[in-house]
Amino acid sequence: MNFITFTEAKLRDFTYSVFKKMGCSDAHATLAADVLIRSDLRGIDSHGVARLSGYVRLWEKKRINATPNIKIVHETPTTATVDGDGGLGLVVAPFAMQVAMEKAEKYGSGWVAVKNSNHFGIAGYHALMAVEKDMIGISMTNASPLVAPTYANERLLGTNPMCYAFPAGKYPAVIVDMATAAAANGKLEIAQRANKAIPDGWVQDANGQQSLDPNELKNGGSLLPLGSDKDHGSHKGYGLSATVDILSAVLSGANYGPWVPPFVAFLEPPTDPVGEGIGHFLGAMRVDGFRPAADFKSHLDNWIARFKSAKTVDPTKKVIVPGEPEHDFEQERKLSGIPIIDVVVNDLNELAAKLEIEGL
Amino acid sequence: MNFITFTEAKLRDFTYSVFKKMGCSDAHATLAADVLIRSDLRGIDSHGVARLSGYVRLWEKKRINATPNIKIVHETPTTATVDGDGGLGLVVAPFAMQVAMEKAEKYGSGWVAVKNSNHFGIAGYHALMAVEKDMIGISMTNASPLVAPTYANERLLGTNPMCYAFPAGKYPAVIVDMATAAAANGKLEIAQRANKAIPDGWVQDANGQQSLDPNELKNGGSLLPLGSDKDHGSHKGYGLSATVDILSAVLSGANYGPWVPPFVAFLEPPTDPVGEGIGHFLGAMRVDGFRPAADFKSHLDNWIARFKSAKTVDPTKKVIVPGEPEHDFEQERKLSGIPIIDVVVNDLNELAAKLEIEGL
Repeated sequence: MNFITFTEAKLRDFTYSVFKKMGCSDAHATLAADVLIRSDLRGIDSHGVARLSGYVRLWEKKRINATPNIKIVHETPTTATVDGDGGLGLVVAPFAMQVAMEKAEKYGSGWVAVKNSNHFGIAGYHALMAVEKDMIGISMTNASPLVAPTYANERLLGTNPMCYAFPAGKYPAVIVDMATAAAANGKLEIAQRANKAIPDGWVQDANGQQSLDPNELKNGGSLLPLGSDKDHGSHKGYGLSATVDILSAVLSGANYGPWVPPFVAFLEPPTDPVGEGIGHFLGAMRVDGFRPAADFKSHLDNWIARFKSAKTVDPTKKVIVPGEPEHDFEQERKLSGIPIIDVVVNDLNELAAKLEIEGL
Repeated sequence: MNFITFTEAKLRDFTYSVFKKMGCSDAHATLAADVLIRSDLRGIDSHGVARLSGYVRLWEKKRINATPNIKIVHETPTTATVDGDGGLGLVVAPFAMQVAMEKAEKYGSGWVAVKNSNHFGIAGYHALMAVEKDMIGISMTNASPLVAPTYANERLLGTNPMCYAFPAGKYPAVIVDMATAAAANGKLEIAQRANKAIPDGWVQDANGQQSLDPNELKNGGSLLPLGSDKDHGSHKGYGLSATVDILSAVLSGANYGPWVPPFVAFLEPPTDPVGEGIGHFLGAMRVDGFRPAADFKSHLDNWIARFKSAKTVDPTKKVIVPGEPEHDFEQERKLSGIPIIDVVVNDLNELAAKLEIEGL
């Protein structure tokens, strides 16, 4: 495996050009590129430009609308449902978060369920929009079914991530951004490339038995919920994933459970949809709706300092505050660039050739 | 172990009498009894009358105020902070949920952070208040520190439960009500009584090493977050627990992390508090703030039916919808009574003698 390092600006221009070629407006192409590049900056390589050709393939199959008319279809002062019109989740979700933040600005909090959308990138991007305004940001999305609930031998839920983000004072924001599966698919892919066994408790095989084979998903197996098995609380991971699915899709009118359309263009969506597209759920609460923002931040700083200085089992492994590693990546990669693995660079250059734009 | 079965009415009257003897008002004693009895009805025996003498001991030590002046100290149209005035969480949390629901009635959603409170019973009780009004209910609380974050060798977080409850149509509500630890303390106690080893991944010993001994907490060990270890996602359980702690206490002005006062009267609270009492966080969102309630309920029924009929690994173990077992317990125990283990009955009869009220 070789990595080639690019500047943020170079990757951003390239990504913008790809979205423009799909027919996105300037504003949408700029925003969608920003979401993907921020993922790469933050070290979440699985959700950045590595996904770009996947979005294009879905667009080629007319499963992504490059010129969506995103609109509010139902609302109260602090709640709304947004119809994404089949657009990129990368632009639909920021639209919805903006609606949530405007409601929070006026009334203290705002909550938006989204239907008829697509993959929205990293959950943290959207939650961080709120943090920049001294709000608590919440974002979640459902996803195509890969996870078997406790006791099940079929894939009924996505890796359905949830994210909570909190503004701190002198420290970076606390950002809990997590898939509700024991391990997300990206970790299996790393093991596949390295030809290595995975830990027990990540997947089950097609017969529902524990497996250490990272290729099990391709053979009809399933990912397992956070907790891995009943003894270790997999019903909790399943419950969290169900919560994300219900808030994102049953509440908005999107597809849920096994009806969620696949992210990959080579798999066709179910022919009996129960809603429109995939669903998200976004929320914002003004910190000063509860106590003065400065008080909250100074106590959160105290919380962070206490956890960072916790007594550890192994002196080489410090307790990590949620969001700290991604923040450190972002500082470092803004300075020294973003390393992209060669297979992704090749894929992007093939994409560039096909779209007749300049390669990387 | 022997069980004695009591009618719901008998246990309710007894519990009411105990709270009255503490000096609670009629309304508070009735409400606090309702919260505890509902826990026993729903099969969550660890959080019902089994805790009654613990509340009394805290009151005797003047760590619970039986006549609190519970009030809103900060608010916007849809957010508020409530000061519980050191009262029973069993009455403070329903007050706060009522505030959240009134805000939701007017503006679509309502969110209340609570400080200066105590143990609030089962999270599900408060979330279900919202469900009865066709709202989505959210409730969470922090708790005295028993859990070590990933890589830590000290207890910095409680078992910090979170609950999301959703109204369905023909089926019972979906209620995800879960501790964010791999296993809650109640499960260790069951293993202690049976003198049995516990599964790996529930606790670590005083040196931070895995242990199968259910007595490890008494020896300076810690509970582990949901996910158990880093490979299996313990950083996610830790992140969820941190989320509950920050929303419940950093946002409200309660104590957080290792500063949360212990629930047991024989342990003294920290002498350097960072806030007041323990904290909760409660929320309500009108379902019809997003789509017509009938549409939501019929799709949630469809979700439930699909999950209940999922293909299983073992034909004797069906996929369980979150909240289903507790609902079944409630139906059954309302008819045939509530079995209480003899050690708890003896404890309650000693309490009755001390308080000079009629025993069970």
